[in-house]
Amino acid sequence: MQFNLDKSFDILTRTPAVLEMMLDGIHEDWIHQNEGAETWSPYDVIGHLIHGEKTDWITRLEIVLSDNVAKHFKPFDRFAQFDESKGKTIQQLLQEFKLIRQKNMAILKSKNITEADFSKKGIHPVFGEVTLENLLATWTAHDLGHLGQIARVMAKQYTDAVGPWKAFLPILAAR
Amino acid sequence: MQFNLDKSFDILTRTPAVLEMMLDGIHEDWIHQNEGAETWSPYDVIGHLIHGEKTDWITRLEIVLSDNVAKHFKPFDRFAQFDESKGKTIQQLLQEFKLIRQKNMAILKSKNITEADFSKKGIHPVFGEVTLENLLATWTAHDLGHLGQIARVMAKQYTDAVGPWKAFLPILAAR
Repeated sequence: MQFNLDKSFDILTRTPAVLEMMLDGIHEDWIHQNEGAETWSPYDVIGHLIHGEKTDWITRLEIVLSDNVAKHFKPFDRFAQFDESKGKTIQQLLQEFKLIRQKNMAILKSKNITEADFSKKGIHPVFGEVTLENLLATWTAHDLGHLGQIARVMAKQYTDAVGPWKAFLPILAAR
Repeated sequence: MQFNLDKSFDILTRTPAVLEMMLDGIHEDWIHQNEGAETWSPYDVIGHLIHGEKTDWITRLEIVLSDNVAKHFKPFDRFAQFDESKGKTIQQLLQEFKLIRQKNMAILKSKNITEADFSKKGIHPVFGEVTLENLLATWTAHDLGHLGQIARVMAKQYTDAVGPWKAFLPILAAR
């Protein structure tokens, strides 16, 4: 599928409401269970999404669009949420994510990005040169990836309860 | 995680609204693209969920709870949606799913199921004996599985657009 900005807005603007609809008010066990050692619960994932909004996507977008010669992105901290989410309820995190995503969507719109900008470049700490299109598509696919992860982590909590049906539920074996 | 009926209601009652929030009003390409030959688009998945509500979950639940000796479930048609969804818009399908799920949740509540019922049995065409707990947990995990599938199918539409970031997005390699 061809990338375009509207298709990315379709997803990026909806994710906070999708997550709120999935997680707000459900039993604590759905929120805090994970897939085992070194894996994340839905609660951890929301904290990770918030940290990305605060430090990653828009910051990198502004580096790519700026007239500065320095185009290197800072590495992203994949574990920041374990400190930053401490003491917060899932409702607080969902609300925080909604507000910062709204703010970032307003910033994104204010850039008036055109197709001519899609090939502008930044320097990723691991990959080297990446384009604005890569960055915006990744922001979008990253939302969907974590949405899929949350659904998978939740489904796995019923691995024992489904009994023999496990054989017909590929999500219970997915990583 | 221990199964209970409220935890299943948490998911089953929310799924239609989650899917509506994800899919209603987004670009057609997100709705109709799939993962390649013999795979399903988000549009196909919603049709499959509707067919399950019409012919599978409640029908099987009623067999398990009934006083009849005949406890065999009919096989489920995993491809019925390709005919049944024909000519319908995604909005129509989302609405249809919402209404039939609401109706089925009302039926489920009306059964006043207690823990004593969880071990009641039916005969699955492939697995043989399954319990009511298995059936209700599977209905729930099945929702989450297809939600994860939809997120994955959508994410994969940006496989080219993300460029080198593909290496950091495990969902793009998932099945």
